[in-house]
Amino acid sequence: MSEPAALDRDPALSARASTDALVERLGRLSAEAERAGLDAVLVGPGANLRYLVGHSVPSHERLTCLVIVPGASPRLLVPALERPGWDGVPTDALGVEAVTWLDGQDPHALLASLLPAAARVLGVDDDLPARHLLRVQAAVDGSRLRLAGPTISELRMRKSGDEVAALAAAGAAIDRVQARMGEWLWAGRTERDVAADIAAAIVQEGHATADFVIVGSGPSGASPHHEAGERTIREGDSVVVDIGGPTPAGYCSDCTRTYVVGAPVDRELETVHEVVRRAQQAGVAAARAGSSCDSVDAASRTVIEEAGYGEYFITRTGHGIGLEVHEEPYLVAGNERPLEPGMAFSVEPGIYLPGRFGVRIEDIVVVDDDGSPRRLNHFDTSLVRLAP
Amino acid sequence: MSEPAALDRDPALSARASTDALVERLGRLSAEAERAGLDAVLVGPGANLRYLVGHSVPSHERLTCLVIVPGASPRLLVPALERPGWDGVPTDALGVEAVTWLDGQDPHALLASLLPAAARVLGVDDDLPARHLLRVQAAVDGSRLRLAGPTISELRMRKSGDEVAALAAAGAAIDRVQARMGEWLWAGRTERDVAADIAAAIVQEGHATADFVIVGSGPSGASPHHEAGERTIREGDSVVVDIGGPTPAGYCSDCTRTYVVGAPVDRELETVHEVVRRAQQAGVAAARAGSSCDSVDAASRTVIEEAGYGEYFITRTGHGIGLEVHEEPYLVAGNERPLEPGMAFSVEPGIYLPGRFGVRIEDIVVVDDDGSPRRLNHFDTSLVRLAP
Repeated sequence: MSEPAALDRDPALSARASTDALVERLGRLSAEAERAGLDAVLVGPGANLRYLVGHSVPSHERLTCLVIVPGASPRLLVPALERPGWDGVPTDALGVEAVTWLDGQDPHALLASLLPAAARVLGVDDDLPARHLLRVQAAVDGSRLRLAGPTISELRMRKSGDEVAALAAAGAAIDRVQARMGEWLWAGRTERDVAADIAAAIVQEGHATADFVIVGSGPSGASPHHEAGERTIREGDSVVVDIGGPTPAGYCSDCTRTYVVGAPVDRELETVHEVVRRAQQAGVAAARAGSSCDSVDAASRTVIEEAGYGEYFITRTGHGIGLEVHEEPYLVAGNERPLEPGMAFSVEPGIYLPGRFGVRIEDIVVVDDDGSPRRLNHFDTSLVRLAP
Repeated sequence: MSEPAALDRDPALSARASTDALVERLGRLSAEAERAGLDAVLVGPGANLRYLVGHSVPSHERLTCLVIVPGASPRLLVPALERPGWDGVPTDALGVEAVTWLDGQDPHALLASLLPAAARVLGVDDDLPARHLLRVQAAVDGSRLRLAGPTISELRMRKSGDEVAALAAAGAAIDRVQARMGEWLWAGRTERDVAADIAAAIVQEGHATADFVIVGSGPSGASPHHEAGERTIREGDSVVVDIGGPTPAGYCSDCTRTYVVGAPVDRELETVHEVVRRAQQAGVAAARAGSSCDSVDAASRTVIEEAGYGEYFITRTGHGIGLEVHEEPYLVAGNERPLEPGMAFSVEPGIYLPGRFGVRIEDIVVVDDDGSPRRLNHFDTSLVRLAP
């Protein structure tokens, strides 16, 4: 297996954030932290670290932590053993000082020593695991720990032009997989076998990995989080296919279509599919700058309720997407946050009829600079019939 | 791509823990918790949850948590939306009560309500992220939180016969990949291209995913945690190949060999490789029941020191392995824990010559019931020369 050809098609699949962009993000986080009353922000491995310095590592027993103190240079604490892995990060140009620690040293005490003596309120990365958090808490005795997630989200939820291009490239890659569904989805195969083929195609079409592959046939489709099981797909089944993953650039795709294998055995399928299609269209149309997140949820929900299926739409309408497949903003009842240009999220209403079938249609949508919604998925939203 | 043929070869690649085994683990954790003075143990998504109930889910913004209170039935808190995903877990047979919560409810308050009023000390999963930990801490105001990792490790680090069989199957699968190295590793290819081929083979040979693929050619090999970069492999290079991943059963492989492409350009390579091979053999031989973890580290280290390369062996000698690729026990200076039958770990000494090359040899070893060490990797440890 050599590099997937898709990588040659669109450089946005693998483009890295520019040094200028990273410098701007670090500066903005510093300002947001100050506004939020945080004396420091501690960022562990994961999407936040990748967003801020362009690189991350898996989270494990050795502490890696970026320390942001408003008004001071960021410091990046890394195990000495792993320092070479950070050579690709232009720390000097970013104004980040790397601080290494050796096996045998106490990294949590070292971290505490990097904080200003007057630090009272520390923001910690939402993903920081207990193994580090409780030890930091002990080492900074007296400081108050607060989740830094909302502060970092203020940056991450507004995507730059380059980030939107990266999400569009991810969307195009997953569209190519949906368009190939007829290669794998037939009666007589198990959901799991179909999912294995789809996973391989997700990588072939330009993703780094296949993060999730939901294949919900017939009654399995009525459980929104069903993955792929041993059920054999039959002629006449509807099949919910919800797939995605990160590109090499780190930005995620997430797209759902509902297929039917031959002629539907359940006569209500076409009706339900059309209701979901209209609900999804209404949600997308409502996703304009200035509209609240919950008004988008309501726009989709109203269509389904008016068609008499309200009790079967058992999820929120969508979630933000970027370096993580689920992030702010969430399109859910009660979330009054107004949408802004650069916000990107899924719009994915569904109807789930227990014991019978489910239908979901999902596209990623971004609010454009002019305030209007733009889909980043373009594959046909009608009920695609695959030859039996 | 259909199911890899390797899965037909060895059922231990995908075997699930029996209900009896899970019941025993839950009972033992309850007893260990009591011994450790924990009034409850909170286990989030990850390897610990999979170990205890045979299933897990990705960790995300919705709280999933197993609550173990000594003397009471375990409770499993799950989002209602995800309840169907747990249908494969025999909760009744395990004596586990599933408690679901709906979007809009406060799951952290609900969790607190499941704890005995007298609970004073709570053990939390080392992997529980800050987004849940800080909220639990607020909800159980007055309770003291402590890491539960050491308590759960008391169970996990002693593998049952079925777990050893699962690790042996993972070892055989990764050995098959090492044995095929000549298919991909040639002069003129980049490390990254070679790594992509190896990743595909890791899955073909029976793993669920390729968790890590280190290809360190020439000077890249001198950084133990180098992954795979743009460097083009040249004739005469040594290449460190450190690869592994989880099987569908969840148990991990991890195996390193150092290859040479054609005739080595660095004349010291063969000498260094032979020192590492003897050091690895000495480490394996020392890994007997009753010997301390640090004595195994010392056994490998002494061979390298006596050969004059001590300052270039810059890592610990090994780490435990099971449902995670790094877990207890760690073979590191200062760890006086005595080895016991059922403990499984890597033995992976190395010599890293900056700017020149690195050599590492790694096998997984388990302490057998009779107290002697048994390798779970069997691929040739000599310096394998690949045709240029």
